[in-house]
Amino acid sequence: MTSQISPEQSAREEELLARVLGSFEHTPDERLRYLLQELVTHLHTFVRTVRLTEPEWNAAIEFLTRVGHMTNQHRQEFVLLSDVLGVSMQTVAVNNEAAGNATEATVLGPFFAQDAPHIENGGDISGGAPGEPAWVEGTVKSVGGAPIPGARIEVWEAGEDGHYDVQHHDGRVYGRARLFADENGEFRFWGLFPTPYPIPDDGPVGDLLQATGRSPYRAAHLHFMVSAPGYRTLVTHIFVRGDELLDKDSVFGVKDSLVHDWSHHSAAEPTPDGRDLRGRRWARVRFDVVLAPGQSVDYGALMA
Amino acid sequence: MTSQISPEQSAREEELLARVLGSFEHTPDERLRYLLQELVTHLHTFVRTVRLTEPEWNAAIEFLTRVGHMTNQHRQEFVLLSDVLGVSMQTVAVNNEAAGNATEATVLGPFFAQDAPHIENGGDISGGAPGEPAWVEGTVKSVGGAPIPGARIEVWEAGEDGHYDVQHHDGRVYGRARLFADENGEFRFWGLFPTPYPIPDDGPVGDLLQATGRSPYRAAHLHFMVSAPGYRTLVTHIFVRGDELLDKDSVFGVKDSLVHDWSHHSAAEPTPDGRDLRGRRWARVRFDVVLAPGQSVDYGALMA
Ligand SMILES: [Fe+2]
Ligand SMILES: [Fe+2]
Repeated sequence: MTSQISPEQSAREEELLARVLGSFEHTPDERLRYLLQELVTHLHTFVRTVRLTEPEWNAAIEFLTRVGHMTNQHRQEFVLLSDVLGVSMQTVAVNNEAAGNATEATVLGPFFAQDAPHIENGGDISGGAPGEPAWVEGTVKSVGGAPIPGARIEVWEAGEDGHYDVQHHDGRVYGRARLFADENGEFRFWGLFPTPYPIPDDGPVGDLLQATGRSPYRAAHLHFMVSAPGYRTLVTHIFVRGDELLDKDSVFGVKDSLVHDWSHHSAAEPTPDGRDLRGRRWARVRFDVVLAPGQSVDYGALMA
Repeated sequence: MTSQISPEQSAREEELLARVLGSFEHTPDERLRYLLQELVTHLHTFVRTVRLTEPEWNAAIEFLTRVGHMTNQHRQEFVLLSDVLGVSMQTVAVNNEAAGNATEATVLGPFFAQDAPHIENGGDISGGAPGEPAWVEGTVKSVGGAPIPGARIEVWEAGEDGHYDVQHHDGRVYGRARLFADENGEFRFWGLFPTPYPIPDDGPVGDLLQATGRSPYRAAHLHFMVSAPGYRTLVTHIFVRGDELLDKDSVFGVKDSLVHDWSHHSAAEPTPDGRDLRGRRWARVRFDVVLAPGQSVDYGALMA
């Protein structure tokens, strides 16, 4: 569209951008200067490329105002906005560069909690929430194939109703736990077969999804955070092969390598650990984790 | 910085962007689709170029949250943010393309009011606010040089204390008026010699200015909005030649063509209209307005 712009007009627009960039030239923090100058360049280029109209600029201001007013201690609408624009996932991508066969990362999401109950290997994370019991097992290894004994594993997931415990705001705890890999780097626990759920869509971000014909639903998943000294902390999910939402996850969290085969078993089949499920059918999945070398990151502290 | 990124990593990041762009492919409104796809492209390119860290992403979310919570019916912190990043001014630029010798536009700002008192030509807009009286006169013409009789002129400015009337939230009215060019396209009124003022800087945008070593001050100015049927509504200011803030206006509103010579006169010199200023010195400026052909825009309605 810029082909219709006169050289004089173009020069005015470029001169303005140069002036704005210059205003940040004396920022004491070099990284902040760089970030702001890059941000300004992209914002101005966006405005110039699309020839943003004044009603559109107004609509953007109003939209952001609604996002701000929707945000409170229980609801982070800016994070949802970043999520549905894929900005969160792109940030995950640049902070988890491809490293050999290391397990790929995906979004942390808003439902991690630092104080999950500890369980032993083989324990149950469901906290009594209803759903199909699912046996989850795997090994934590390095890129070189060495098992990582004692790796810390945090897992969390929504209940069968599509809500996480923390969405109830009443202190109840279900669907989350912390455990540690054993001396062979192996782990195992009972979780719930994952349920798809919509991200909160009764605010401006939901309106954006609706206006663009997009679904608020996330593909069904089980969250993992795996860490060990000397390794890059892995924040990821596992998904369910065959889930029809895999290619339209509302926050772009799905990666092929994270889609797993879950088997389903009748109540008559014996469970891996001999647990008596009292006539319920159950599922099973294997998730072998490969950690990249690097630094541990305390995501809980980052979020606080 | 992207030169250090492996081809595999780069491919992952590009594939993610492509997926996000694809998610907007079925947006019913074609313009909205285009705007969102361009926005997403720029946001992702920003994240990829600067290799945005997760703490930086968190800081951005927290900053926007503060901006949202600072915004209320009297304070629009998102507009201030757009202003100090030059995004408002770039939007003005693309909506007021260079058109011959048409007077250049600048930012509307947050202090326009729709219901300014009407005055006759030669009247006083100050509403009794203290300051140096300033005689302002000029002609409204087309690009072809034809006078535009009856052109509607709205003017507004801060008082000597650097505040606009509407910043007091008590209904007082000063420093603003609406008048009409006479049968020759000429206008004249008494205003106040303009005073520099800081944009509101006790919120996150003020913190941003401080962190980047920038001043919140605007160069002294007098706002104009000039409209007539068949002409592009002109929103602009006039500035004061010699003002040391001209090259560091916090919202980038200054344009060379809008900087005017204001003369100062002792109380002994007769005023242009013979008004008795009771011993006060006074100033004088000429501002000839040239309107581009185009559409009238109702900025009041746009803001409402
Ligand atoms: Fe989740
Ligand atoms: Fe102003």
